[in-house]
Amino acid sequence: PRAHPLALGPGREFDAIRDFAARWGSLASALGDDCAVLDVPAGARLCVSTDASVEDVHFRRGWLTPREIGYRAAAAALSDLAAAAAEPLGLLLALSAPHAWRADIGEVAEGVGEAARAAGTRILGGDTTGGAGALSLTVTVLGAARRPLSRGGAEPGDRVWVTGALGGPLAALRAFERGEAPAAADRERFARPVPRLREARWLAERGARAAIDVSDGLLADLGHVAAASEVTIEVDVARVPCLAGVSNADAAGSGEEYELAVVLPPALDVAEAFARELGTPLTEVGRVASSGRGPGRVIALASGTRVDLPVGYDHFSS
Amino acid sequence: PRAHPLALGPGREFDAIRDFAARWGSLASALGDDCAVLDVPAGARLCVSTDASVEDVHFRRGWLTPREIGYRAAAAALSDLAAAAAEPLGLLLALSAPHAWRADIGEVAEGVGEAARAAGTRILGGDTTGGAGALSLTVTVLGAARRPLSRGGAEPGDRVWVTGALGGPLAALRAFERGEAPAAADRERFARPVPRLREARWLAERGARAAIDVSDGLLADLGHVAAASEVTIEVDVARVPCLAGVSNADAAGSGEEYELAVVLPPALDVAEAFARELGTPLTEVGRVASSGRGPGRVIALASGTRVDLPVGYDHFSS
Repeated sequence: PRAHPLALGPGREFDAIRDFAARWGSLASALGDDCAVLDVPAGARLCVSTDASVEDVHFRRGWLTPREIGYRAAAAALSDLAAAAAEPLGLLLALSAPHAWRADIGEVAEGVGEAARAAGTRILGGDTTGGAGALSLTVTVLGAARRPLSRGGAEPGDRVWVTGALGGPLAALRAFERGEAPAAADRERFARPVPRLREARWLAERGARAAIDVSDGLLADLGHVAAASEVTIEVDVARVPCLAGVSNADAAGSGEEYELAVVLPPALDVAEAFARELGTPLTEVGRVASSGRGPGRVIALASGTRVDLPVGYDHFSS
Repeated sequence: PRAHPLALGPGREFDAIRDFAARWGSLASALGDDCAVLDVPAGARLCVSTDASVEDVHFRRGWLTPREIGYRAAAAALSDLAAAAAEPLGLLLALSAPHAWRADIGEVAEGVGEAARAAGTRILGGDTTGGAGALSLTVTVLGAARRPLSRGGAEPGDRVWVTGALGGPLAALRAFERGEAPAAADRERFARPVPRLREARWLAERGARAAIDVSDGLLADLGHVAAASEVTIEVDVARVPCLAGVSNADAAGSGEEYELAVVLPPALDVAEAFARELGTPLTEVGRVASSGRGPGRVIALASGTRVDLPVGYDHFSS
């Protein structure tokens, strides 16, 4: 006898889960047991990460539709798998919804499903509870990689690259905070980030040494790579690719981009092939100093002069 | 070059993570990358579950110490691995802490570490953010099992058992809600539940057919087993093991117990060996009706008469 996928007892909490499962369809065919059970492909290592999206910390209700909130939370979590160059195996959604959100959580779940579908993966399970105060989504992602990338592989002399064009989320946030509508392109980058899953695997197959997804801001995230790799990274701010209307300096500090910053060996110049095959630009923005190992730091250079730039967003600073 | 475990950039969020890692020590030796990377033992399947503990939904601040809040959240999540008879591989902690909790989150993290240590497992990663309103912990657990148990394996004629003695958490909750101190034994069962990990593997090795951990209340949880297995389960309420001072009916409805309800083949009578080897009672509380398959239901019998009993706690009902 096999478990019926949605055979749960009565109750409003289970009604919500049944509603989600109906929306997700074949994306979530195994819901309804204490654990989801799955297999990791032979020869691959398991990569796992958890990521919280909290109302009034990561978004405000008026800024995004419920569906965008769900999509964005799942895309942000999947982006951690991209940083490891892992192939997604699935995700779990823990949703804590205050009463004022009850009517909208189905749409939030739709957005999560949309991001899972776009990444070619499925929803393995979750937990749905009431909650005081704020809507909170915690998305846990599982992936598999034969040779996962980490922050710790950068070597002296390597070159540093970034996918896409940065600055949209920061510009959108500033507009939202002024009570204005962001430019459409900026809003789109904030509301519907694209986890660079395929791009990361493409780069890993070609010999990428280290990677991180841009969540705290390019300079802050390269700070994590520098620290983990025990190297100095020099960033040429003028080369940071930016959306129209955004300065390079803002692009270098904009967080929650979910573009990929990647460290490649010096001889590996794949930008043209990358753009042609993946339809996204790959831009060189700096290098790992050849000075050898050290405690890890980032130097931002503008016209050859060292400048101080904001290094991302600290969720504990407000 | 290898990643330095705690090589993160500057920032108060990272300071919190560094503080947690210092408290966890070797329990959390691989923190600090986008993904945790691990291996699933050859021949085993991966079991995964996520579980949210939200202030004012699952606990109130005055009831428990910060360390107990962390311990309880992690123990509740680990209990889902027990339901699958899986061996823990590790857990991830997503913590959203409003300002009023900042001084206490280190102790919350200690409690999570204590539960991980007690289960013989480690902390793989997490996410720490600010948050509006309520403290929220989402714990995701990973485990491995060659033949995971599920809710869906009960067969007509099987017998139904439960570990430990129930009712403590309900009695503690009632006392807390009256503004009184619970009896010590009741409080202990509420504050420091024991995930039955070793017990579950012991029973699975001996041929257990289905299992669930008692989180919604024994009758409600057996309702999930009945639904997933498409059988009728009859529970003899008078046989439900209860703590001193708790009625059998309350014990049958008490949630967040994290004891294990397990379905065994009719000829398997291991209660004595179980109690001797594991130091915990295993009590027969009912049976799977021999009437064959159906939509799944639970009948609670008191002195041979069908009675209606509360079927657990619905987080959406308040």
